[in-house]
Amino acid sequence: MNSGANSLYPLLRPDTVAVIGAAREPHKIGHQVVRNLIEGGFPKERIFPINPYAEHILGLKCYPSILDVPTKVDLSVIVVPARIVPKVLEECGKKGVKAVAIISSGFKEVGNVELEEKIVRIAKKYNMRLLGPNIVGVCDTIKSVNASFCQSLPLRGNIAFITQSGALGIALVGWTKMHNIGLSDLVSLGNMADVDQSDLIEFFGDDPETKVITLYIEGVKDGRKFFETCKRVTVKKPILAIKAGKAERTVRAIKSHTGSLAGSDSAYNAVFKQSGVIRVPTFPDLFDWAVALSISPKPLNNNIVILTNGGGAGVMATDAAEEYGISLLEMPKDLADRIRKYMPPFGSVLNPIDLTGMAGREWYRESLKELLRDSRVGGVIVLYCHTAITTPREIADAIIEAVRTVGYCKPVVVSLIGGEEVIDECERLISNKIPCYDSPEKAMAAMGAIIKYYSDREKILSRKYPRLNVDYEKAKGIIEKALKRGHKILSPREAAEIVEAYGIPVVSKKLAKSKEEAIRFAEEIGYPLVMEVDSPHILHKTDVGGIIVGVNSREEVGKAYDDIIRNVSEKAPEAHINGIIVRKMAEKGREVILGMHRDPIFGPVIMFGSGGILVELLKDVSFRVVPLSVEDAHEIIEETKAYKMLKGYRGEKEADIDCVIDAVLRLLKVVEDFSEIEDVDINPFFVYDKGKGGIAVDVKIILS
Amino acid sequence: MNSGANSLYPLLRPDTVAVIGAAREPHKIGHQVVRNLIEGGFPKERIFPINPYAEHILGLKCYPSILDVPTKVDLSVIVVPARIVPKVLEECGKKGVKAVAIISSGFKEVGNVELEEKIVRIAKKYNMRLLGPNIVGVCDTIKSVNASFCQSLPLRGNIAFITQSGALGIALVGWTKMHNIGLSDLVSLGNMADVDQSDLIEFFGDDPETKVITLYIEGVKDGRKFFETCKRVTVKKPILAIKAGKAERTVRAIKSHTGSLAGSDSAYNAVFKQSGVIRVPTFPDLFDWAVALSISPKPLNNNIVILTNGGGAGVMATDAAEEYGISLLEMPKDLADRIRKYMPPFGSVLNPIDLTGMAGREWYRESLKELLRDSRVGGVIVLYCHTAITTPREIADAIIEAVRTVGYCKPVVVSLIGGEEVIDECERLISNKIPCYDSPEKAMAAMGAIIKYYSDREKILSRKYPRLNVDYEKAKGIIEKALKRGHKILSPREAAEIVEAYGIPVVSKKLAKSKEEAIRFAEEIGYPLVMEVDSPHILHKTDVGGIIVGVNSREEVGKAYDDIIRNVSEKAPEAHINGIIVRKMAEKGREVILGMHRDPIFGPVIMFGSGGILVELLKDVSFRVVPLSVEDAHEIIEETKAYKMLKGYRGEKEADIDCVIDAVLRLLKVVEDFSEIEDVDINPFFVYDKGKGGIAVDVKIILS
Repeated sequence: MNSGANSLYPLLRPDTVAVIGAAREPHKIGHQVVRNLIEGGFPKERIFPINPYAEHILGLKCYPSILDVPTKVDLSVIVVPARIVPKVLEECGKKGVKAVAIISSGFKEVGNVELEEKIVRIAKKYNMRLLGPNIVGVCDTIKSVNASFCQSLPLRGNIAFITQSGALGIALVGWTKMHNIGLSDLVSLGNMADVDQSDLIEFFGDDPETKVITLYIEGVKDGRKFFETCKRVTVKKPILAIKAGKAERTVRAIKSHTGSLAGSDSAYNAVFKQSGVIRVPTFPDLFDWAVALSISPKPLNNNIVILTNGGGAGVMATDAAEEYGISLLEMPKDLADRIRKYMPPFGSVLNPIDLTGMAGREWYRESLKELLRDSRVGGVIVLYCHTAITTPREIADAIIEAVRTVGYCKPVVVSLIGGEEVIDECERLISNKIPCYDSPEKAMAAMGAIIKYYSDREKILSRKYPRLNVDYEKAKGIIEKALKRGHKILSPREAAEIVEAYGIPVVSKKLAKSKEEAIRFAEEIGYPLVMEVDSPHILHKTDVGGIIVGVNSREEVGKAYDDIIRNVSEKAPEAHINGIIVRKMAEKGREVILGMHRDPIFGPVIMFGSGGILVELLKDVSFRVVPLSVEDAHEIIEETKAYKMLKGYRGEKEADIDCVIDAVLRLLKVVEDFSEIEDVDINPFFVYDKGKGGIAVDVKIILS
Repeated sequence: MNSGANSLYPLLRPDTVAVIGAAREPHKIGHQVVRNLIEGGFPKERIFPINPYAEHILGLKCYPSILDVPTKVDLSVIVVPARIVPKVLEECGKKGVKAVAIISSGFKEVGNVELEEKIVRIAKKYNMRLLGPNIVGVCDTIKSVNASFCQSLPLRGNIAFITQSGALGIALVGWTKMHNIGLSDLVSLGNMADVDQSDLIEFFGDDPETKVITLYIEGVKDGRKFFETCKRVTVKKPILAIKAGKAERTVRAIKSHTGSLAGSDSAYNAVFKQSGVIRVPTFPDLFDWAVALSISPKPLNNNIVILTNGGGAGVMATDAAEEYGISLLEMPKDLADRIRKYMPPFGSVLNPIDLTGMAGREWYRESLKELLRDSRVGGVIVLYCHTAITTPREIADAIIEAVRTVGYCKPVVVSLIGGEEVIDECERLISNKIPCYDSPEKAMAAMGAIIKYYSDREKILSRKYPRLNVDYEKAKGIIEKALKRGHKILSPREAAEIVEAYGIPVVSKKLAKSKEEAIRFAEEIGYPLVMEVDSPHILHKTDVGGIIVGVNSREEVGKAYDDIIRNVSEKAPEAHINGIIVRKMAEKGREVILGMHRDPIFGPVIMFGSGGILVELLKDVSFRVVPLSVEDAHEIIEETKAYKMLKGYRGEKEADIDCVIDAVLRLLKVVEDFSEIEDVDINPFFVYDKGKGGIAVDVKIILS
C-alpha cells in the first residue's frame, strides 16, 4: 500500500467521484451522499452513482458497476452493506480506483474483525488507499466535495479538521458555520483500517490550502508514526488537538465505543509537547485558537501589552495571562510617556494600559500605533467594553487603521465585549486577519496559543541530540546472561552494573556469598555500609527485613549478615538468595527518581521526578517519549517540583543539575540500545551540590 | 445611616425618580439618563428632571431644585459635577429622599478623598443610602428603571448582577441580551462610599424577584460583613462570583514564612468556600451557571448519568466530569437492562450511555424517562450531536416530554451540538426550565455548579462549632507579660506554653540559664535531647548554629551549651540570649504545619499543610477564615496532599488525624481569644499513628 501523503490526493482532492450503493429512496444514505455531492457544488457530470437496479438517480445516469463507468474514477464512496463491501472493493481495484471512502459500518466496531482485515487485504492488493470503514465521509471545500452524509459542506476556509467521532464531525459542520469559521476539509476517520491521523496530517502539512490542522483524537494506533509525523509537520504549520480520555473513566468509555486501545494520557502529553502539537481543552477553543493561528503574524517576542477602556476587562485579562503563563511587558518609561497623551489624567500607563471609558477611535488608534511601532512589545491584546461614548465600529476602524499604518508586524488579538452590535465588527476584524473574541479570557487564550506555537517551533528546530560514550558490550553481556537464566527481574547488582556501564554513577557494592566474604568486602569498601539481600524474587526489600543500614564494624557486618538471612528465610521462604550485597552508605543527597516504562502505543517513556518516599505522595513526575533531545532532558526536569528543590530554596545551594540531565540522557541511551528492557527504576538517585555530581542508590531493571 | 437591606428599597425598586443635573443636550449624561428612564418604560409622570435653566427636557417638566418637586421622591440620580454634589445632596436630604445614586465622578478615584468623605457625612446626616459615586447607574427590570447611562435595560429576568466595573456592566447589558439571558437588576458599585456588595447581597437575598445573585468583585472593603452576609444568603439562594485579581499580590510585611504563603486571594477563596459562594472563572460561565441555577431543581444525589448519541461528545463530557469532580453513576444492571431496549446492539449502557447516531425522539424520551424515574440517578446530562437521522426539535420535544411525564425531579442539563438549527431549540429548552448549552463541557460545568450549590448549602446548614476547655488565664498572663516587656516575638518557650495552655501538646522543654542548670534539666527530662538557643531576636536558629540535636549525655549537654553560646555570639552578636532550651527529642512523626496570620480584609486566617522542609517546596497549604466549624477543620486538612500522607499510603498506617483536627480547632480558639496575636506558626507538628496523638515541636508566635 502506498503510504505517502501524495497517495491521499485522489481521496481529498478528487476530480471524479463514484457512489457505490447510490439509492433512489431519499431516506437512504446512498441517496443522501449523491444529493450532498450535487448540492455541495461538485460538477454533476463527474459524479457517478453505482446501482445495478436504477437508471437515474437525482437526474444522474446510473451505472450497474464501477467497471461500467466510462472514465477514470478518483474516489469511490462506498455505502453498500458490510458483507458486499469486499465484492465492490475488488471491482474498484480492477477499475484502477486509487482511493475509497467506506461509509458502511458493520466491521471491527461491532466485532467483525475478519471482514475488516479482508477489505484491508483487498485495498492493499490494488494499491488503494482506504478511509474508514464506519465513517461519516469526507468534506472538501476546496474542490466542493461533500462525499458524506453531512447535510451541507462547511464554509470554505483554511483549517483542516480530522475527527475520530463522526457524530461530532457532523454537528461541528453546523457549529463552525454558525460561528463563521471556514474549513478546508472535514475528514471522519472511522475505524482507521488504513488511513489514520498521521497520513492526513502529512497530507495537510503539504497542502497549500490548509493553514492550520485540527484534530479530535480518542486514540492513535501507531504512536511512533504519529510522533514522527507531527514533529515534521508542526514546523510547517500549527497542529491543534483535542485529546479525549484524560480521565480513567473516559478511557473506558472510549474502549466501549471504538474498541481502540488507549495509550496513557501522560504519554500523549509528552508526545504533544515533544512534537509541538498544542493540546486544546474544548472544541470551541479548538476553533478559536485555529482561527487566531491561521491569520495572525508571529510575535516579536513573548512580552504582551494589554490595551483596554475598562479596568475590569483589563484585570480579567491579567488573570488569564497568569493562567496561560503569558508574560506581560513591564512598560518602559519612554513608551508609557508616549501613550499617556491618549488618555485622561486618571488613565493608567501601567500594563494593562487603561485608556478609561472616555476612550474613542483616536486614542485607541494612536496608542495601538505606538505599541505596534515599539519592538519591545511582542504582541497586543486590545479590549473594548461597549460604552455610550463610541461605537464598536469606530474601535474596529481604529484597530484596522493602526495595523494598516504601522504594518501587521506582531499579533493583535481583540475582545469586543457587548451585545449584537459587536458581532459584525468582530467578523470584520477577523476578515482583516485580526482575531477577535467576545471575552478577554478567550482573547488571551488565543494569544497564548500563538505564542506557544512559535516558541515550540523554534525549540523543535533547534533541538540537539546527545552523543555519549557507553560500554554497550558489557551491558549486553549482563542482559544476555540473565535472559539465558530466564530471569526477568535483574538482581540489583546486575541492574547497577548495566547503568554503570552506561556512565551513570552507582553506589559501589559487592555481592557476598558468605559471612566471611561480606566482612572482607566491608573492609575493602569502608564504613559505614548498607547490607541488603540480593534476590530476583524480592522487589521491596524493606518489607521482608532484607536491608540493614548504618553497619559500622566487622562485628556488625557479621550480625547483619545473619539477621538478613534469618529475616528473609522467615518472611519470603521461597525466594532464592544470590547473596548479600555490601554497599557503601552514600552521603544523602537530594532525592530524585529516574525511570522508564513502555507505553503500549508510544513505546519507551522516560520519567523524572521527586524521589525517595515522596514518589507516591507527590506524584511529581514528568514524562518524555524517546528519543529525547538535550532540550527535552532539560525540560523534563524543569517541569517538576523536584527542579525547584534542585535549584535550592530557602538559602540552600543549587544541586548538580547537569549530572541529572546527563543521567537522564544516559538512561535514554540504555533504553534505546536494549529493547529487551521493559522497565527501569532508579530511586533514589542522590543529587549533591553543584559540581559534586550525584549517584544512583537503588536500580531496578525488568526485562520483557 | 440605616444599614438594613430594606433601606435599599427606594434605591432598587423606586416609584419616583429625580435626575439632578438633567440636561437638554443629547450628548450629556444628564440627558441620556432621562432618555433611558423614559425609553426603559418607567412612567413619565414619575420622572422629575432637575435643572434650574430648563423648563422641559424630553417633554418632561423640569424643576429648578429637588425641593420644588411636588411629590415624594424615592430615588435621586445625581449627574452634576463633583463639586456641586454636596449642595444637591443637602437638598435631597431636606426633601426627605432616602436613596441617591451618584453617577458623577471626580471623588476618591481621582484622589479627592475629602470630597467623598463630605458626601458620606451629608448622606449619613439625612439617613440617606448612597450608591456610588462614580457609577454607571442602576438598572432594574422589575420596575423598568433604567437610571443609568446603559443605552437600554437588560432583558427582564431573575438574576441580579452586581459589578465593580462600570464598563463591564454596560457591555454585559448587550451581551446578556444577545444570549437571551434575563436580569432582575444590574447595579454598578463605583467607589462604594456607602452601599457595598454586602448591602446589595442582603437586599437581593430577600428580594422575591431574584433567584440567583451574581457578582464581579475586585475587592471588598469590609471582609467580615461580606463573609457573614454571604453565609446568611447562600442558604436562601445561590451567589456566584467572579473575583478578579488572582495574579495580584497583596503587599504585606513578611514576618515569618507562614505569612508569605498566603496572599489575600487565598483568603477570598477560603471565604467563598466557607460561605457557599461559588467562584466562577469567566463571565460567560457566570451567566451560564446562573441560568442553570435559576431554573433547575435540586439533584437527588451526586451521581450523574450522561446520555448521548455520539461517543465523542460522551467522552468529552466524561473528561469534563473528572475536571469538575463530578461523580458518574456506576450503572446498576437492572437500570442498564431497561435502557438497553432503546438502542441498537452496538450501543452502550455504560455511563456515558451511548444511544448511537441512530437515536431519535423515542429512544431519547424513553431512556430519559427511565433515568428520571430511578432514584439512584442524581441528575442527567443529555447530549445530542446534530445528525441527519433526526432534528434538534424532535430531541428537545423528547426531553420536554420525558420531564413532563415523570416530573422535573432532578436536574436535566442538555447540550445540543450543531449549527443555527439548534439555537431555537436550546432557547425553547431553557424556557421550559431545562438548561441547555452548545458544548458538552459547558453542560457539565453547569451541572457541577448545581451540585456544588446544593451540597455546599447542606454543609453550611449542618455546621457545628466546637466547644473546648482551655486555660485562658495562663495564656493571657504570658501575653501580657511579653507586651509589658515590649517583646513582639515571643520566645519559643512562651509560645509553647500558650498553645499548651490551649490543649495542644508540645514537646517538653525547659529554659536553662546556665550550663549547670542545663545539665540538671537534661537529667530530669531524659535523653536524647535537643538544645537550642532562646532569643527573641533569632527566628531561624539553624542559620546561626543555635540548635544541636541528638544530645545523649551529661558531657554532651555541657559541650552543646558552650557550642551554642559561642556560635550565636559569633553569628548574631547583637541577639539577646534568654538562655538555652533543653527539650526532649521527640520521636519523629509525619510532619504538618499549622499556622495563622491576619488578612487585612478578612482578619484571622488559619492555615494547614505539609510541614517540615516541605512547606516552601510544595506550598501544600489550605486556608480558612475564622470562625471555623468542625467541618471546616476537617476540610482544611482534606484539601491538602498532607491528608493523603496522614491517611497512609504504600502500606503505611493511618495517622492520628483526629488529633490534627483537634489541634486546628484549639489553634483557632487561641486566635479568637487573643486579638493581640498577629501570627502563629507551628512547624513541624509531628503526627503519630492513629490513636497515638501528635505533638508540636516548634511554635512561633508574633504579637501585633
